[in-house]
Amino acid sequence: VLPRDAQFDTVVTVDMMVEDIDFRLEWTTPEFLGYKALAVSVSDIAAMGADPVWSLLSIALPGILWKGDFLDRFYVGWFELARELGVELIGGDISRSPERLVVDSTVGGQVAKGRAILRSGAAGGDLLFVTAGLGGSGGGLQLLESGGRYGTSEDSRVNHLILKQLRPNPQITASNSIQIHGLASSMIDISDGLSSDLIHLMAASGTGCRVDRANIPWEMGLNDLFDADTAAIMALNGGEDYELLFTVRSHEAQTAVDLGFIKIGEVTNHEGRYELVSHTEVTPLHARGYQHFRNS
Amino acid sequence: VLPRDAQFDTVVTVDMMVEDIDFRLEWTTPEFLGYKALAVSVSDIAAMGADPVWSLLSIALPGILWKGDFLDRFYVGWFELARELGVELIGGDISRSPERLVVDSTVGGQVAKGRAILRSGAAGGDLLFVTAGLGGSGGGLQLLESGGRYGTSEDSRVNHLILKQLRPNPQITASNSIQIHGLASSMIDISDGLSSDLIHLMAASGTGCRVDRANIPWEMGLNDLFDADTAAIMALNGGEDYELLFTVRSHEAQTAVDLGFIKIGEVTNHEGRYELVSHTEVTPLHARGYQHFRNS
Repeated sequence: VLPRDAQFDTVVTVDMMVEDIDFRLEWTTPEFLGYKALAVSVSDIAAMGADPVWSLLSIALPGILWKGDFLDRFYVGWFELARELGVELIGGDISRSPERLVVDSTVGGQVAKGRAILRSGAAGGDLLFVTAGLGGSGGGLQLLESGGRYGTSEDSRVNHLILKQLRPNPQITASNSIQIHGLASSMIDISDGLSSDLIHLMAASGTGCRVDRANIPWEMGLNDLFDADTAAIMALNGGEDYELLFTVRSHEAQTAVDLGFIKIGEVTNHEGRYELVSHTEVTPLHARGYQHFRNS
Repeated sequence: VLPRDAQFDTVVTVDMMVEDIDFRLEWTTPEFLGYKALAVSVSDIAAMGADPVWSLLSIALPGILWKGDFLDRFYVGWFELARELGVELIGGDISRSPERLVVDSTVGGQVAKGRAILRSGAAGGDLLFVTAGLGGSGGGLQLLESGGRYGTSEDSRVNHLILKQLRPNPQITASNSIQIHGLASSMIDISDGLSSDLIHLMAASGTGCRVDRANIPWEMGLNDLFDADTAAIMALNGGEDYELLFTVRSHEAQTAVDLGFIKIGEVTNHEGRYELVSHTEVTPLHARGYQHFRNS
């Protein structure tokens, strides 16, 4: 968060996507990839309660992709979302890459002065909310890994989950609603997975949490295509849903419920103690989402 | 250039460096690479007459580099320049890369409102200036290609040229001086090579130019290590010097000379006509610098 003027602060975020780590070209389309490159950075902006305004795009392109229409199609997808959100492309850099495609997306946004929502604002007694069903992107990834491709199934639920993985939607509208109602004491977008991002949020706030497994919402179709245990694990640990996870002071909880957000648990004063409640059993919650580099 | 407030505009720039395209790990050090990653983006900011303020750094790191001290040493180099310039690292993204290192550096800067120096401001009759000797980085690259390594030669000129290639210095001080004296009607940094960047500048301004080959300054040591023809070609076409090329209204030319800048030619009204004068012969000037992707 950077001070801008008397009225606004600027927020800036950057995300890098690397071929064969973050995406596979044979699973997606150039249009989906362009859309997702912008979406993941806008999601970070949304998590701060800000509005995206401008973007810089760096692309390292292998020769084989330069020759075809890849870049034109990538921009079609990118601009589809940019137009919807009013984001202006103000610059970038296109380089050669020996083999693999790398996309780095920087997005700048604005938020009313002092109103950026941080990860560090949760307090014991706050309630935990998410914006919508989870696990869809993880389900889509598993469908892709077992040979599913977008548009090849007659089952619309298959296409729906795969689309959640390949072309996720950043939750700008939900973020605006949360911001207008002054609801969130802290917020993060669910990119690594609920369990991991929840722990990120609690660690930044110096708090603990207790989450009720039965209250974690599942993405539509997830339980039709996977058994209940698998669906529950995808909703808890699957990454890239790009929904928002936020905390709400207890006296505001009813407003959050009325706006359609889903309560999944509560914040406690026990810093570092993360608990998962299944029926009457309480077990430690571990960060089982995407662990970035350290995991490999 | 983005409007910020009543006093300042914001400028933002991004540069991507890809292993084996833009650098080779066996030729450089992690410290030099970190320094250069920031330097090349700051150079763009300097070319707009602005001051760098913040940076975002995205790095895609192969597993082999993650295990050692590469990243720590990279940051040592990065922060060396950041501290000197007062640049704050406000965020970034570290990803895995299957094989090759990719660094994407975004830098934001500020400039007094309406005072950003653009590429499009040159006019016929302006004079062309550069900030210092050219070709050093190209000479260093040739030394590296023929087996030279930094610090292994007892000839300080060899180390000097190699350092120009591996750890270039952005011309912030010169830029400040140009800005304070209101000297430049247009400006660009010499990253691709004088011939190419000159044509970029003239094309953006809708002008032509005439450059006197004898006036193009050579980097110190260049003519000692290479013959005069090679040195002249390096100064004209060699990239990555990160000196500044700018245009000055004719009545300001003496001020530019007094400040130590070097006059290399003049801007003409013949849009698209780029001329190189050698003795009394006039030949067309071609963009023979680095052609980015399209060249390969």
